[in-house]
Amino acid sequence: MTIKYPNGNHYQPHLKSKISRPIIYGKRGMSLEDEVNKSNQYYLENQIAVVHKKPTPIRIVKVNYPKRSAAVIKEAYFDHASTTDYNGVYKGYYIDFDAKETKSLTAFPLRNFHKHQVEHMRQCVRQGGICFALIKFVKTNEIFVFKASDLFYFWDQQNHGGRKSIPKPIVEKLGYQIHYHFQPLIPYINAVNQIIQS
Amino acid sequence: MTIKYPNGNHYQPHLKSKISRPIIYGKRGMSLEDEVNKSNQYYLENQIAVVHKKPTPIRIVKVNYPKRSAAVIKEAYFDHASTTDYNGVYKGYYIDFDAKETKSLTAFPLRNFHKHQVEHMRQCVRQGGICFALIKFVKTNEIFVFKASDLFYFWDQQNHGGRKSIPKPIVEKLGYQIHYHFQPLIPYINAVNQIIQS
Repeated sequence: MTIKYPNGNHYQPHLKSKISRPIIYGKRGMSLEDEVNKSNQYYLENQIAVVHKKPTPIRIVKVNYPKRSAAVIKEAYFDHASTTDYNGVYKGYYIDFDAKETKSLTAFPLRNFHKHQVEHMRQCVRQGGICFALIKFVKTNEIFVFKASDLFYFWDQQNHGGRKSIPKPIVEKLGYQIHYHFQPLIPYINAVNQIIQS
Repeated sequence: MTIKYPNGNHYQPHLKSKISRPIIYGKRGMSLEDEVNKSNQYYLENQIAVVHKKPTPIRIVKVNYPKRSAAVIKEAYFDHASTTDYNGVYKGYYIDFDAKETKSLTAFPLRNFHKHQVEHMRQCVRQGGICFALIKFVKTNEIFVFKASDLFYFWDQQNHGGRKSIPKPIVEKLGYQIHYHFQPLIPYINAVNQIIQS
Protein backbone atom coordinates (compact mmCIF):
# COMPACT_ATOMS: atom_id res chain seq x y z
CA MET A 1 0.00 0.00 0.00
CA THR A 2 1.26 3.43 -0.91
CA ILE A 3 1.02 5.98 1.87
CA LYS A 4 0.14 9.49 0.75
CA TYR A 5 0.35 12.73 2.66
CA PRO A 6 -2.59 15.15 2.48
CA ASN A 7 -0.68 17.20 -0.13
CA GLY A 8 -0.70 14.17 -2.46
CA ASN A 9 3.01 13.40 -2.13
CA HIS A 10 4.12 9.85 -1.63
CA TYR A 11 5.75 8.91 1.61
CA GLN A 12 9.41 8.39 0.85
CA PRO A 13 11.02 6.74 3.83
CA HIS A 14 14.61 7.17 2.55
CA LEU A 15 14.40 10.78 1.48
CA LYS A 16 14.47 12.30 4.93
CA SER A 17 17.50 10.35 6.03
CA LYS A 18 19.27 11.44 2.85
CA ILE A 19 18.58 15.09 3.54
CA SER A 20 19.55 14.95 7.16
CA ARG A 21 22.83 13.21 6.37
CA PRO A 22 25.64 15.72 6.61
CA ILE A 23 27.25 16.71 3.32
CA ILE A 24 30.36 14.71 2.66
CA TYR A 25 32.70 16.48 0.30
CA GLY A 26 34.17 14.29 -2.38
CA LYS A 27 31.30 11.87 -2.04
CA ARG A 28 31.33 8.42 -3.57
CA GLY A 29 29.71 8.28 -6.99
CA MET A 30 31.45 11.38 -8.25
CA SER A 31 34.68 10.44 -9.94
CA LEU A 32 37.87 12.39 -9.33
CA GLU A 33 37.63 13.52 -12.95
CA ASP A 34 34.18 15.00 -12.32
CA GLU A 35 35.44 16.73 -9.19
CA VAL A 36 38.41 18.24 -11.00
CA ASN A 37 36.20 19.33 -13.91
CA LYS A 38 33.81 21.05 -11.52
CA SER A 39 36.73 22.79 -9.82
CA ASN A 40 38.10 23.94 -13.17
CA GLN A 41 34.68 25.27 -14.11
CA TYR A 42 34.64 27.32 -10.90
CA TYR A 43 38.13 28.66 -11.58
CA LEU A 44 37.13 29.52 -15.15
CA GLU A 45 33.88 31.28 -14.26
CA ASN A 46 35.60 33.29 -11.55
CA GLN A 47 38.52 34.23 -13.81
CA ILE A 48 41.00 32.57 -11.47
CA ALA A 49 42.54 30.08 -13.92
CA VAL A 50 41.85 28.58 -17.36
CA VAL A 51 42.38 24.83 -17.11
CA HIS A 52 40.61 22.25 -19.29
CA LYS A 53 40.60 18.50 -19.54
CA LYS A 54 41.81 17.38 -22.93
CA PRO A 55 39.38 15.26 -24.94
CA THR A 56 39.96 11.51 -24.84
CA PRO A 57 42.14 10.56 -27.81
CA ILE A 58 40.23 8.35 -30.24
CA ARG A 59 41.54 6.55 -33.32
CA ILE A 60 38.78 6.79 -35.90
CA VAL A 61 38.54 3.93 -38.41
CA LYS A 62 35.17 4.32 -40.12
CA VAL A 63 32.87 7.30 -40.54
CA ASN A 64 29.53 7.39 -42.33
CA TYR A 65 28.33 10.63 -43.89
CA PRO A 66 24.57 10.28 -44.16
CA LYS A 67 22.80 12.87 -46.34
CA ARG A 68 21.28 15.76 -44.44
CA SER A 69 22.55 14.68 -41.03
CA ALA A 70 25.70 14.70 -38.95
CA ALA A 71 28.64 12.42 -39.66
CA VAL A 72 28.49 9.21 -37.60
CA ILE A 73 31.62 7.48 -36.40
CA LYS A 74 30.90 3.75 -36.84
CA GLU A 75 34.23 2.28 -35.77
CA ALA A 76 36.83 3.81 -33.49
CA TYR A 77 39.18 2.81 -30.70
CA PHE A 78 40.50 4.43 -27.55
CA ASP A 79 44.06 5.63 -28.02
CA HIS A 80 46.76 6.08 -25.40
CA ALA A 81 47.20 9.69 -24.37
CA SER A 82 50.64 11.07 -25.14
CA THR A 83 50.30 13.85 -22.59
CA THR A 84 48.61 14.46 -19.27
CA ASP A 85 44.86 15.09 -19.06
CA TYR A 86 44.80 18.68 -17.80
CA ASN A 87 46.61 21.83 -18.76
CA GLY A 88 46.06 25.54 -18.81
CA VAL A 89 47.19 28.93 -17.59
CA TYR A 90 47.16 30.60 -14.18
CA LYS A 91 48.59 34.11 -13.69
CA GLY A 92 50.81 33.60 -16.71
CA TYR A 93 52.08 30.25 -15.43
CA TYR A 94 51.67 27.11 -17.49
CA ILE A 95 49.90 24.44 -15.42
CA ASP A 96 49.99 20.75 -16.37
CA PHE A 97 48.77 17.79 -14.34
CA ASP A 98 47.08 14.45 -14.19
CA ALA A 99 44.51 13.29 -11.66
CA LYS A 100 44.92 9.75 -10.31
CA GLU A 101 42.96 7.70 -7.82
CA THR A 102 44.19 4.79 -5.75
CA LYS A 103 42.30 2.38 -3.51
CA SER A 104 45.47 1.60 -1.59
CA LEU A 105 45.62 2.78 2.02
CA THR A 106 49.36 2.64 2.30
CA ALA A 107 50.97 3.82 -0.94
CA PHE A 108 50.43 5.36 -4.38
CA PRO A 109 51.29 2.76 -7.06
CA LEU A 110 53.46 4.18 -9.84
CA ARG A 111 51.73 1.97 -12.41
CA ASN A 112 49.01 4.65 -12.39
CA PHE A 113 51.29 6.57 -14.72
CA HIS A 114 52.25 5.72 -18.26
CA LYS A 115 55.85 6.22 -19.26
CA HIS A 116 54.94 8.82 -21.91
CA GLN A 117 52.94 10.85 -19.39
CA VAL A 118 55.96 11.10 -17.11
CA GLU A 119 58.10 11.96 -20.14
CA HIS A 120 55.63 14.71 -21.07
CA MET A 121 55.85 16.15 -17.55
CA ARG A 122 59.64 16.16 -17.79
CA GLN A 123 59.43 18.11 -21.04
CA CYS A 124 57.04 20.63 -19.50
CA VAL A 125 59.16 21.09 -16.37
CA ARG A 126 62.19 21.74 -18.59
CA GLN A 127 60.21 24.54 -20.25
CA GLY A 128 59.38 26.10 -16.90
CA GLY A 129 55.85 24.72 -16.55
CA ILE A 130 54.26 23.85 -13.20
CA CYS A 131 53.56 20.13 -13.31
CA PHE A 132 52.14 17.79 -10.71
CA ALA A 133 49.98 14.78 -9.99
CA LEU A 134 46.69 15.24 -8.18
CA ILE A 135 46.55 12.04 -6.11
CA LYS A 136 43.40 10.85 -4.39
CA PHE A 137 43.32 8.10 -1.78
CA VAL A 138 39.69 7.13 -2.34
CA LYS A 139 39.25 5.04 0.82
CA THR A 140 40.09 7.99 3.05
CA ASN A 141 38.98 10.78 0.72
CA GLU A 142 42.38 12.47 0.93
CA ILE A 143 43.81 14.50 -1.94
CA PHE A 144 47.38 15.65 -2.47
CA VAL A 145 49.18 17.75 -5.04
CA PHE A 146 52.43 15.91 -5.63
CA LYS A 147 55.06 17.83 -7.60
CA ALA A 148 56.33 16.27 -10.82
CA SER A 149 59.95 16.78 -9.74
CA ASP A 150 59.29 14.56 -6.68
CA LEU A 151 57.44 12.04 -8.84
CA PHE A 152 60.43 11.78 -11.19
CA TYR A 153 62.64 10.74 -8.28
CA PHE A 154 60.46 7.74 -7.39
CA TRP A 155 59.76 6.93 -11.03
CA ASP A 156 63.48 6.69 -11.79
CA GLN A 157 64.19 4.73 -8.60
CA GLN A 158 61.84 1.91 -9.60
CA ASN A 159 64.00 1.22 -12.64
CA HIS A 160 66.99 0.74 -10.34
CA GLY A 161 65.48 -1.81 -8.02
CA GLY A 162 63.39 0.73 -6.10
CA ARG A 163 59.78 0.45 -4.92
CA LYS A 164 56.92 0.32 -7.44
CA SER A 165 54.93 2.77 -5.33
CA ILE A 166 55.31 5.92 -3.25
CA PRO A 167 54.60 5.21 0.44
CA LYS A 168 51.71 7.31 1.73
CA PRO A 169 53.79 8.96 4.50
CA ILE A 170 56.05 10.31 1.75
CA VAL A 171 53.08 11.61 -0.23
CA GLU A 172 51.93 13.32 2.97
CA LYS A 173 55.36 14.76 3.66
CA LEU A 174 56.33 15.98 0.18
CA GLY A 175 52.85 16.68 -1.17
CA TYR A 176 50.40 19.48 -0.47
CA GLN A 177 47.18 18.19 1.03
CA ILE A 178 44.05 19.70 -0.51
CA HIS A 179 40.95 19.61 1.65
CA TYR A 180 37.57 19.37 -0.02
CA HIS A 181 35.90 22.73 -0.11
CA PHE A 182 32.55 24.07 -1.20
CA GLN A 183 33.68 26.19 -4.13
CA PRO A 184 35.87 25.07 -5.73
CA LEU A 185 35.45 21.47 -4.65
CA ILE A 186 39.20 20.80 -4.93
CA PRO A 187 41.05 24.10 -4.41
CA TYR A 188 44.29 22.85 -5.97
CA ILE A 189 45.36 26.36 -7.01
CA ASN A 190 46.26 26.92 -3.33
CA ALA A 191 48.98 24.31 -3.74
CA VAL A 192 50.06 25.88 -7.04
CA ASN A 193 50.55 29.17 -5.17
CA GLN A 194 52.75 27.39 -2.63
CA ILE A 195 54.76 25.78 -5.43
CA ILE A 196 55.25 29.18 -7.09
CA GLN A 197 56.41 30.72 -3.81
CA SER A 198 58.77 27.86 -2.94
CA MET B 1 42.00 -3.68 -68.57
CA THR B 2 44.22 -3.70 -65.51
CA ILE B 3 47.93 -3.90 -66.24
CA LYS B 4 49.91 -6.04 -63.82
CA TYR B 5 53.65 -6.32 -63.34
CA PRO B 6 55.22 -9.82 -63.02
CA ASN B 7 55.27 -9.37 -59.22
CA GLY B 8 51.49 -9.02 -59.21
CA ASN B 9 51.45 -5.30 -58.44
CA HIS B 10 49.13 -3.03 -60.37
CA TYR B 11 50.65 -0.45 -62.68
CA GLN B 12 50.30 2.95 -61.00
CA PRO B 13 50.89 5.63 -63.58
CA HIS B 14 50.80 8.55 -61.12
CA LEU B 15 53.25 7.23 -58.59
CA LYS B 16 56.46 8.12 -60.41
CA SER B 17 55.51 11.70 -61.14
CA LYS B 18 54.74 12.14 -57.45
CA ILE B 19 58.18 10.95 -56.41
CA SER B 20 60.13 13.02 -58.92
CA ARG B 21 58.31 16.25 -58.09
CA PRO B 22 60.64 18.64 -56.25
CA ILE B 23 59.87 19.39 -52.61
CA ILE B 24 57.87 22.57 -52.24
CA TYR B 25 57.66 23.92 -48.72
CA GLY B 26 54.10 24.19 -47.54
CA LYS B 27 53.11 21.99 -50.40
CA ARG B 28 49.55 21.30 -51.42
CA GLY B 29 48.32 18.02 -50.02
CA MET B 30 49.84 18.65 -46.61
CA SER B 31 47.27 20.37 -44.49
CA LEU B 32 48.15 23.29 -42.27
CA GLU B 33 47.41 20.97 -39.34
CA ASP B 34 50.05 18.50 -40.56
CA GLU B 35 52.54 21.32 -41.03
CA VAL B 36 51.93 22.68 -37.53
CA ASN B 37 52.15 19.18 -36.03
CA LYS B 38 55.49 18.59 -37.76
CA SER B 39 56.75 21.94 -36.49
CA ASN B 40 55.65 21.10 -32.95
CA GLN B 41 57.40 17.74 -33.20
CA TYR B 42 60.61 19.53 -34.14
CA TYR B 43 60.24 21.99 -31.25
CA LEU B 44 59.57 19.09 -28.86
CA GLU B 45 62.48 16.92 -29.99
CA ASN B 46 64.86 19.87 -29.78
CA GLN B 47 63.58 20.94 -26.37
CA ILE B 48 62.52 24.34 -27.69
CA ALA B 49 58.84 24.19 -26.76
CA VAL B 50 56.20 21.66 -25.70
CA VAL B 51 53.07 22.28 -27.80
CA HIS B 52 50.52 19.60 -28.70
CA LYS B 53 47.35 19.49 -30.72
CA LYS B 54 44.41 18.55 -28.55
CA PRO B 55 42.53 15.42 -29.62
CA THR B 56 39.33 15.99 -31.59
CA PRO B 57 36.42 16.04 -29.16
CA ILE B 58 34.09 13.10 -29.74
CA ARG B 59 30.73 12.39 -28.12
CA ILE B 60 30.59 8.64 -27.63
CA VAL B 61 27.15 7.02 -27.73
CA LYS B 62 27.77 3.28 -27.98
CA VAL B 63 30.77 1.12 -27.08
CA ASN B 64 31.10 -2.63 -27.44
CA TYR B 65 33.39 -4.54 -25.10
CA PRO B 66 34.23 -7.76 -26.91
CA LYS B 67 35.86 -10.47 -24.80
CA ARG B 68 39.63 -10.66 -25.10
CA SER B 69 39.96 -7.63 -27.38
CA ALA B 70 39.92 -3.86 -27.26
CA ALA B 71 36.75 -1.83 -26.70
CA VAL B 72 35.18 -0.74 -29.99
CA ILE B 73 33.29 2.53 -30.31
CA LYS B 74 30.29 1.72 -32.52
CA GLU B 75 28.50 5.05 -32.49
CA ALA B 76 29.97 8.49 -31.86
CA TYR B 77 29.71 12.04 -33.16
CA PHE B 78 32.08 14.92 -33.67
CA ASP B 79 31.67 17.55 -30.97
CA HIS B 80 32.41 21.25 -31.14
CA ALA B 81 35.69 22.18 -29.52
CA SER B 82 35.31 24.51 -26.55
CA THR B 83 38.91 25.69 -26.76
CA THR B 84 41.55 26.24 -29.41
CA ASP B 85 43.40 23.31 -30.96
CA TYR B 86 46.95 23.93 -29.75
CA ASN B 87 48.46 24.82 -26.42
CA GLY B 88 51.64 24.29 -24.51
CA VAL B 89 54.60 25.87 -22.80
CA TYR B 90 57.61 27.81 -24.09
CA LYS B 91 60.22 29.22 -21.69
CA GLY B 92 57.63 29.27 -18.93
CA TYR B 93 55.09 31.10 -21.10
CA TYR B 94 51.69 29.59 -21.76
CA ILE B 95 51.08 29.40 -25.54
CA ASP B 96 47.61 28.96 -27.01
CA PHE B 97 46.58 29.17 -30.64
CA ASP B 98 44.48 27.93 -33.49
CA ALA B 99 45.61 27.33 -37.08
CA LYS B 100 43.21 28.49 -39.79
CA GLU B 101 43.39 28.36 -43.56
CA THR B 102 41.62 30.59 -46.05
CA LYS B 103 41.34 30.37 -49.82
CA SER B 104 40.58 34.07 -50.04
CA LEU B 105 43.23 36.27 -51.66
CA THR B 106 42.03 39.50 -50.13
CA ALA B 107 40.89 38.90 -46.54
CA PHE B 108 40.67 36.47 -43.64
CA PRO B 109 36.99 35.62 -42.97
CA LEU B 110 36.10 35.77 -39.28
CA ARG B 111 33.65 32.88 -39.69
CA ASN B 112 36.73 30.65 -39.44
CA PHE B 113 36.43 31.14 -35.70
CA HIS B 114 33.72 29.89 -33.42
CA LYS B 115 32.46 32.23 -30.73
CA HIS B 116 33.62 29.92 -27.92
CA GLN B 117 37.13 29.74 -29.36
CA VAL B 118 37.43 33.52 -29.27
CA GLU B 119 35.99 33.50 -25.75
CA HIS B 120 38.58 30.91 -24.73
CA MET B 121 41.36 33.11 -26.10
CA ARG B 122 40.03 36.07 -24.12
CA GLN B 123 40.12 33.98 -20.94
CA CYS B 124 43.70 32.90 -21.66
CA VAL B 125 44.86 36.44 -22.44
CA ARG B 126 43.33 37.61 -19.13
CA GLN B 127 45.48 34.98 -17.35
CA GLY B 128 48.63 36.24 -19.07
CA GLY B 129 48.82 33.59 -21.79
CA ILE B 130 50.25 34.25 -25.25
CA CYS B 131 47.39 33.66 -27.69
CA PHE B 132 47.22 34.03 -31.43
CA ALA B 133 45.81 32.74 -34.68
CA LEU B 134 48.12 31.11 -37.19
CA ILE B 135 46.56 32.22 -40.46
CA LYS B 136 47.46 30.67 -43.80
CA PHE B 137 46.49 32.15 -47.14
CA VAL B 138 46.63 28.88 -49.06
CA LYS B 139 46.58 30.35 -52.59
CA THR B 140 49.76 32.31 -51.95
CA ASN B 141 51.28 30.00 -49.31
CA GLU B 142 51.65 32.89 -46.85
CA ILE B 143 51.46 32.38 -43.10
CA PHE B 144 50.96 34.96 -40.38
CA VAL B 145 50.87 34.92 -36.60
CA PHE B 146 48.01 37.26 -35.73
CA LYS B 147 47.76 38.23 -32.06
CA ALA B 148 44.53 37.41 -30.24
CA SER B 149 44.27 40.98 -28.93
CA ASP B 150 44.15 42.24 -32.54
CA LEU B 151 41.69 39.51 -33.46
CA PHE B 152 39.34 40.60 -30.63
CA TYR B 153 39.18 44.10 -32.10
CA PHE B 154 37.89 42.86 -35.46
CA TRP B 155 35.72 40.19 -33.86
CA ASP B 156 33.94 42.78 -31.75
CA GLN B 157 33.65 45.22 -34.65
CA GLN B 158 31.62 42.76 -36.74
CA ASN B 159 28.89 42.77 -34.10
CA HIS B 160 28.64 46.54 -34.47
CA GLY B 161 28.18 46.69 -38.20
CA GLY B 162 31.85 46.07 -38.97
CA ARG B 163 33.36 43.81 -41.65
CA LYS B 164 33.00 40.03 -41.44
CA SER B 165 36.65 39.60 -42.37
CA ILE B 166 40.07 41.07 -41.72
CA PRO B 167 41.49 42.65 -44.90
CA LYS B 168 44.77 41.03 -45.92
CA PRO B 169 46.75 44.31 -45.79
CA ILE B 170 45.79 44.54 -42.10
CA VAL B 171 46.88 40.94 -41.47
CA GLU B 172 50.18 41.84 -43.14
CA LYS B 173 50.56 45.02 -41.12
CA LEU B 174 49.58 43.78 -37.65
CA GLY B 175 50.63 40.14 -38.02
CA TYR B 176 54.07 38.53 -38.02
CA GLN B 177 54.79 36.80 -41.30
CA ILE B 178 56.30 33.32 -40.91
CA HIS B 179 58.28 32.05 -43.88
CA TYR B 180 58.38 28.31 -44.52
CA HIS B 181 61.62 26.85 -43.32
CA PHE B 182 63.31 23.47 -43.42
CA GLN B 183 63.25 22.69 -39.71
CA PRO B 184 60.86 23.56 -38.26
CA LEU B 185 58.57 23.88 -41.26
CA ILE B 186 56.66 26.79 -39.67
CA PRO B 187 58.99 28.57 -37.22
CA TYR B 188 56.17 30.33 -35.37
CA ILE B 189 58.18 30.55 -32.14
CA ASN B 190 60.11 33.41 -33.81
CA ALA B 191 56.89 35.43 -33.75
CA VAL B 192 56.24 34.38 -30.15
CA ASN B 193 59.65 35.81 -29.23
CA GLN B 194 58.68 39.11 -30.88
CA ILE B 195 55.36 39.14 -29.02
CA ILE B 196 57.18 38.53 -25.70
CA GLN B 197 59.63 41.35 -26.41
CA SER B 198 56.95 43.79 -27.54
